[in-house]
Amino acid sequence: MIGFFDSGFGGLTVMKEYLKKYPEFDYMYLGDQANMPYGSHSKEHVNKLAAANVDFLIKKGCTLIIIACNTASADALRHVQQIYKGKPTILGVLVPAAEEALRKTRFGNIGVIGTRGTIGSGAYERELNKYATEFYKPTEKRAGKTIRVYSQACPLLVPLVEEGMIKHVVTRMMLRKYLRPLKHAHVDTLILGCTHYPLLQKEIERVMGKQVQVISSATAAANAIDDYFERHPDIKNGITTGGTRTYYTTDCPERFSDLGSRFLGEKIEGEKIEI
Amino acid sequence: MIGFFDSGFGGLTVMKEYLKKYPEFDYMYLGDQANMPYGSHSKEHVNKLAAANVDFLIKKGCTLIIIACNTASADALRHVQQIYKGKPTILGVLVPAAEEALRKTRFGNIGVIGTRGTIGSGAYERELNKYATEFYKPTEKRAGKTIRVYSQACPLLVPLVEEGMIKHVVTRMMLRKYLRPLKHAHVDTLILGCTHYPLLQKEIERVMGKQVQVISSATAAANAIDDYFERHPDIKNGITTGGTRTYYTTDCPERFSDLGSRFLGEKIEGEKIEI
Repeated sequence: MIGFFDSGFGGLTVMKEYLKKYPEFDYMYLGDQANMPYGSHSKEHVNKLAAANVDFLIKKGCTLIIIACNTASADALRHVQQIYKGKPTILGVLVPAAEEALRKTRFGNIGVIGTRGTIGSGAYERELNKYATEFYKPTEKRAGKTIRVYSQACPLLVPLVEEGMIKHVVTRMMLRKYLRPLKHAHVDTLILGCTHYPLLQKEIERVMGKQVQVISSATAAANAIDDYFERHPDIKNGITTGGTRTYYTTDCPERFSDLGSRFLGEKIEGEKIEI
Repeated sequence: MIGFFDSGFGGLTVMKEYLKKYPEFDYMYLGDQANMPYGSHSKEHVNKLAAANVDFLIKKGCTLIIIACNTASADALRHVQQIYKGKPTILGVLVPAAEEALRKTRFGNIGVIGTRGTIGSGAYERELNKYATEFYKPTEKRAGKTIRVYSQACPLLVPLVEEGMIKHVVTRMMLRKYLRPLKHAHVDTLILGCTHYPLLQKEIERVMGKQVQVISSATAAANAIDDYFERHPDIKNGITTGGTRTYYTTDCPERFSDLGSRFLGEKIEGEKIEI
C-alpha cells in the first residue's frame, strides 16, 4: 500500500496523479486537519507532526510513503528518513519538482511560489542549487551559466482555493500581485510549490504568459515515480495491489470529504481518527 | 493575575482593552500558535485545546481566565467551566458582545460576522436569543418586537489582517462581498465576532455606513468586566497587582512577537512553551 499525508486535503492533488498512473495499487491518505495548516508552523513542530503521521501510516501497513505536502517535504523529509532509515521508503515532493524545473528551464531563471513555511525554509532554492550541475544544461544562446532562483510566498492562495474562489476577481488580483516580481525577473520556469496550487494552474499560466513553463509539484512527483520504480523494482513489487483507497482525517471529516472530493475530482469520505 | 488565551495573537485586542482599564493588574497571555487557527477545527478538538490552555494558565497562577477567542468562547466556554467549577472564574467574549448588541440595537436587526467556526456553531444567535427578553427593549416606533439575527462567516478576513493588508483594495472588495447581505437585511447593529476584526473596524464602519453601530467583542468584554467586578469584589481583590505582563506562545515566537506587537499596539516578546 502507498501512503500519503498532508496537513489537509491539498495532498490529494498528488495522489490523484499517482492514481492515474497506477490505479492497481492500494492507497491510503491521511489528512492531518487537526494541525493544519503546516505552512504557518515552525520546522520543529512540523517535524514532530510528520513523524506521527509516518508512524500511523506504517502501522496501517504502508510500504511506500509520500509526503504530499511541500512544507512537510521541505521541513521534515530528512528528519523522518533518518528515523526510519529506509524502512519504509519515504519520498517528498520537492526534489522531483526541482529536478523537472532544472531539466526544463531554458535560460536558468526559475521561480518558486509556495506558503510562507515552504518559501521561508529556503528548501527549493537549496535543492535547485544542489542538483543544478547534474540537471541544468544550458543550450540556448542567452542562457545563464548558472541558475537564478526567485522565490515568492503567496499566503493568501491557500485560503482562496479553500473558499472555492478559483475564478474570483480577488484571486486574479492576488495572483497578479504575487507573480509580478517573478515576471519582472523574467523567470522562464515556475514551480507551483504547494499542493493547493494545481487548482489555480490555468489562472497562473494566464498571468505568467505562454512563454513560461509551469511545473506542478504534484505532477512532477508522480512523473518521478516511474523512474524510481525502474531503479527499485523491489519497492514496486512490494506494494499490494487491490485497488483499495482509504481516507483518514484527524479533524472535521465533513469538511475533509467535501473539499477533498473537489481536490481529488471524485467523491470521497474521510474517517476521523486520532494520532 | 489575569490570564488570556487565544489560538494566536488576535486575543491581544481583548487584553489591550483590559490594560487600558486596569493597568495595575498582573497579566499573562498564551497564544496557542501550534494549533491555530481554532476557526477551522471541530468543537470537540477546540474543547481539548481550550482545556489544555486553561490548565496551563491555572498552574502559572492565574485567578481569572478570559477566553480571548470567539471560536473557543463559542465552542468550549461551558466545557472548561464545567471542568473547573468556578475555580478559577473563566469568562468568554461572546456573552458581553451579545448583551451590548441587545442594549444598543434600535430596531432589533443584529448582524454577526466571524470565522467559519464561530458562525457555524450558531453560538451568537443562541446567546442573543437567550438574553433578548432581558436586554432588548424596543423603544423606536419601527422596532421589531423580537430580534432578528443575520450571521455571515468571513473566512478570508483573518489571513488578510495577518498579512497586514488592512487598507488593501482586496480587503475592501472582500468586506463589500461579505457585508452586502447584512446591509440588505438592514442590520442596525453589527457584532465583530472575531478578535482579528477590530483592526478592520474603520473599514467595516465605512462599508456599513454611519447608521450602523459596530460592536467589537474585545471592547464589549472589557466593558463588561467593570460590572462583573462590582458584583464580585472578591474576584477583583484576588488579582495580584504588580503591573507585570508575560507572553507565551506554543510555536513560532518570532511571528508571535512581530504580529502580536501590531495587535497590542506595543512591542512584546513571546516565549515559546509546550503544553
